[in-house]
Amino acid sequence: MSKERHYTLTASCPDRVGLVAKVASFIAEHGGWILETNLHAEPPGPLAPSGRFFMRFEIRADSIPLLLTELRERFAPLAESLEMDWRISDSAVKKRVVILVSRQEHCLYDLLSRWHSGELDVEIPCVISNHEDLRGFVEWHGIPFLHVPVTPDNRPAAFAEIRRLFEEVGGDVMVLARYMQILPPELCRAYPARIINIHHSFLPSFVGARPYHQAWERGVKLIGATCHYVTEELDQGPIIEQDVIRVDHSDTVDDMVRYGKDIEKTVLSRGLRYHLEDRVLVHGNKTIVFR
Amino acid sequence: MSKERHYTLTASCPDRVGLVAKVASFIAEHGGWILETNLHAEPPGPLAPSGRFFMRFEIRADSIPLLLTELRERFAPLAESLEMDWRISDSAVKKRVVILVSRQEHCLYDLLSRWHSGELDVEIPCVISNHEDLRGFVEWHGIPFLHVPVTPDNRPAAFAEIRRLFEEVGGDVMVLARYMQILPPELCRAYPARIINIHHSFLPSFVGARPYHQAWERGVKLIGATCHYVTEELDQGPIIEQDVIRVDHSDTVDDMVRYGKDIEKTVLSRGLRYHLEDRVLVHGNKTIVFR
Amino acid sequence: MSKERHYTLTASCPDRVGLVAKVASFIAEHGGWILETNLHAEPPGPLAPSGRFFMRFEIRADSIPLLLTELRERFAPLAESLEMDWRISDSAVKKRVVILVSRQEHCLYDLLSRWHSGELDVEIPCVISNHEDLRGFVEWHGIPFLHVPVTPDNRPAAFAEIRRLFEEVGGDVMVLARYMQILPPELCRAYPARIINIHHSFLPSFVGARPYHQAWERGVKLIGATCHYVTEELDQGPIIEQDVIRVDHSDTVDDMVRYGKDIEKTVLSRGLRYHLEDRVLVHGNKTIVFR
Amino acid sequence: MSKERHYTLTASCPDRVGLVAKVASFIAEHGGWILETNLHAEPPGPLAPSGRFFMRFEIRADSIPLLLTELRERFAPLAESLEMDWRISDSAVKKRVVILVSRQEHCLYDLLSRWHSGELDVEIPCVISNHEDLRGFVEWHGIPFLHVPVTPDNRPAAFAEIRRLFEEVGGDVMVLARYMQILPPELCRAYPARIINIHHSFLPSFVGARPYHQAWERGVKLIGATCHYVTEELDQGPIIEQDVIRVDHSDTVDDMVRYGKDIEKTVLSRGLRYHLEDRVLVHGNKTIVFR
Repeated sequence: MSKERHYTLTASCPDRVGLVAKVASFIAEHGGWILETNLHAEPPGPLAPSGRFFMRFEIRADSIPLLLTELRERFAPLAESLEMDWRISDSAVKKRVVILVSRQEHCLYDLLSRWHSGELDVEIPCVISNHEDLRGFVEWHGIPFLHVPVTPDNRPAAFAEIRRLFEEVGGDVMVLARYMQILPPELCRAYPARIINIHHSFLPSFVGARPYHQAWERGVKLIGATCHYVTEELDQGPIIEQDVIRVDHSDTVDDMVRYGKDIEKTVLSRGLRYHLEDRVLVHGNKTIVFR
Repeated sequence: MSKERHYTLTASCPDRVGLVAKVASFIAEHGGWILETNLHAEPPGPLAPSGRFFMRFEIRADSIPLLLTELRERFAPLAESLEMDWRISDSAVKKRVVILVSRQEHCLYDLLSRWHSGELDVEIPCVISNHEDLRGFVEWHGIPFLHVPVTPDNRPAAFAEIRRLFEEVGGDVMVLARYMQILPPELCRAYPARIINIHHSFLPSFVGARPYHQAWERGVKLIGATCHYVTEELDQGPIIEQDVIRVDHSDTVDDMVRYGKDIEKTVLSRGLRYHLEDRVLVHGNKTIVFR
Repeated sequence: MSKERHYTLTASCPDRVGLVAKVASFIAEHGGWILETNLHAEPPGPLAPSGRFFMRFEIRADSIPLLLTELRERFAPLAESLEMDWRISDSAVKKRVVILVSRQEHCLYDLLSRWHSGELDVEIPCVISNHEDLRGFVEWHGIPFLHVPVTPDNRPAAFAEIRRLFEEVGGDVMVLARYMQILPPELCRAYPARIINIHHSFLPSFVGARPYHQAWERGVKLIGATCHYVTEELDQGPIIEQDVIRVDHSDTVDDMVRYGKDIEKTVLSRGLRYHLEDRVLVHGNKTIVFR
Repeated sequence: MSKERHYTLTASCPDRVGLVAKVASFIAEHGGWILETNLHAEPPGPLAPSGRFFMRFEIRADSIPLLLTELRERFAPLAESLEMDWRISDSAVKKRVVILVSRQEHCLYDLLSRWHSGELDVEIPCVISNHEDLRGFVEWHGIPFLHVPVTPDNRPAAFAEIRRLFEEVGGDVMVLARYMQILPPELCRAYPARIINIHHSFLPSFVGARPYHQAWERGVKLIGATCHYVTEELDQGPIIEQDVIRVDHSDTVDDMVRYGKDIEKTVLSRGLRYHLEDRVLVHGNKTIVFR
């Protein structure tokens, strides 16, 4: 993330002639130097009768002689006239990532490794866990570790507490890094496209518990992992990223679990990165990912 | 397949101490020069309480001064004492592959390309189709093309005819190369582990019709294909081989169909090859594939 | 390629503020409905001191009430003012692909399979070969097969003839589908970025002859293939597409050759498709590929 | 690595009839229950005129009522008669892995993550580095961190010290986890097939320094990493494992470095695991890897 400071404009709106011209002209009129552009026209379908257009512009911050608030104000009327969903983010403002874990550490190690080396250029205001196991490792990194036990009896209170903490630390995105609890519907609803989960199967295969056992039973020749936004329906949210690895008859369930971890951490870190760089736009239950 | 002539012994039996010693000693006593050995011990499970052992030996034919029938006779008592399922095949006897197609040609082109170049070293006594479209292409290769129309009204008769033809030409294996008909249960039962299908999804995802549409709807980031033995339950038979290819939001269903074809033909040809080289052993609803 | 008829504008020019706005505005002013846009800003480097911008627009033909010649005329002044290299192609005008082969058939089968099914939506005015082996197969498809023998003695004359034929049939692109001859420099120079080769290694590893033998000797764990534009320097031209497949110690050179063929044909067909859809722009000795 | 305790016999010898029978009979006579067998016959070649046979047996320790020393003594005469290179290891004796690092942490994090979770079931007697940067992280894991500075002036003394430390802690294998120093020839010679390096390119492409820059310059479409045994010739030792990841024109050198790290750590951990499980046998400058 050594790029110069830039603003990232992401937007979607009904498709029509002249869209790119209008937005690009707006940027040009303000002197904006475009570093990267991604555009996608989704053909007409049930969700968007006339098609829907998705766009993402990275613009060098120092090429625009305005404060970001001012830029947003000036863009708002154009956005409104085009019926846009839009946002402009500033690469100088680090996103705040709250990580939830249970006992398994491979995804956490991987994320903190990237954070420690500067590759993952975010704030991690805290790690929340329903177990104490990973406290020492997290705290060694200078990150607060918050233990919120979850039991069959205290689930509503526990998740209310998690939500309170997420708000208190100003979280932008919640990452379930093999957090072995199912979030309650109201929490899912509260943060659409802001809660990212890693599921240890190649969805839609092997929804739910023990997917590697399911994969072993079925005798598949590849196993995978899926990074997706969390919605109320378990393992049904918009998929951000997936990958697979080859297995064969000689692999036990334990082997699959072990291989799977490598895929899980890679897929989670890629999906999270796409999200953090504003590369993921949601359309119905699917994602546009501008890699 | 330029290897020297060889016998391939494949067997499975309850696991016990001394198995490999007994079989390898039998081979050695007859002067057998082993070219390749593959062994797999399946741990105890519901299907095999004491575990099950799978083996495959390629032995140079000219190292054994016996006729194959004689070799088989001599092996039989040992095999019986070990409660083996076994067979010995001879690389000099080409397997007879009957291909079934409908209108789509990509898998057929691919198989005949391999056959024409000698890579696929088999007899193809005939290609059977429910349409006339591919007659010219098949006949150009000097292979008989048999048109067996299948309609809602004639299904039992049509599949009885296909079975009769398969028997008449002495088919060893039936390949459904994007044959768009569901085989009746009695045909599936008649040829266990001898009918190979290519399904255009990464099973168990997207069973049944229009899997690429299903994949597009779900927004998966990889699509795949599965080569499997046909059983009575649609798309549920033992999986031989699978592979996937990456797609993204910009790919339409048509794009997926196109990418998918490349995976389908590759996966089918690999799976068929494993089968033809006696590398696939079935255990319950799963396969051991000795690559 | 079932998309509606469209024009594809591809261009590159020195990077500057307002580029996208100018081009997109031009398109919008003419009513152009954009189906797909791809943009890439190459940072400043030795080849382009101020950076270089690459763009590709697919525009629905029926949204622009002009003849293509007229559209080109109107675009020319803008292009000139921006110092552009540019072209506009029409999806209704099929490109003319001349295929050169020797004896190996796997790439040819693969290309003709795609052509026969309509997936590869081009004209193939002829196939040229230095051997007679594949005449029957080509002619069965109704495509003229031209035999141009190449011997150590007649190379200049043979390649002059090939060039004459390519001109005569109005070839747009020449595809070396495992054509086992090295083209003379003047032929390479005559058609920059219009001659596509498939090399049977993962370049830059294993340049030159017998790459699978080289790979086997070195003991690599993956082998690959490379689709590239032909330049005067053997196997050094701009790379369009590459892929690999896993091998291991049990694979002989023959096995590698066999696996390699699957990669070769896939990589060639992908690279050719990118070229035909005007998705490949050359920058120095590298390519921008807008997939 | 939750398998029951087992002995692993690995051996290679000139190929001949009856080899498997003899070894398997030896195992059976001692009651050995075979968990996994891997065999490979290398065809005759310059290194082995009559071919060479490689084998690996995992045998349940509790099925053999002998001490391991006794088992070795009994096997020795057979091994001698067959001119074997052989060893028998005991899964209950953890191998001792000495890790060398410089400043980059991704491989170290990955290895320690696997060690901490028990997946990598070894002793790590120390981590040696030419920099102090990673001391805290290593020591947090309770592993001694030894700083051995390497400067242009002290190289012989520094590497003598490293060798002394490796001997002192009883190291079995030395892992260069992105250790940015070239080992002197005498150190390489001292530990054949016991020093493992991760090189950040898909060898033999891009030997030496700054491979990602080289890859970017050449415009390859995949980048990779290679895990290999260190020999005196830089980046020329026997390859254990390789993998690749896709890149495109939009990826800068920095992006490639970042993607590359993911491949490096995965490939290193896989290669190391193969080594630790006695799955890697060296034959000339190549490896047999019994996965």
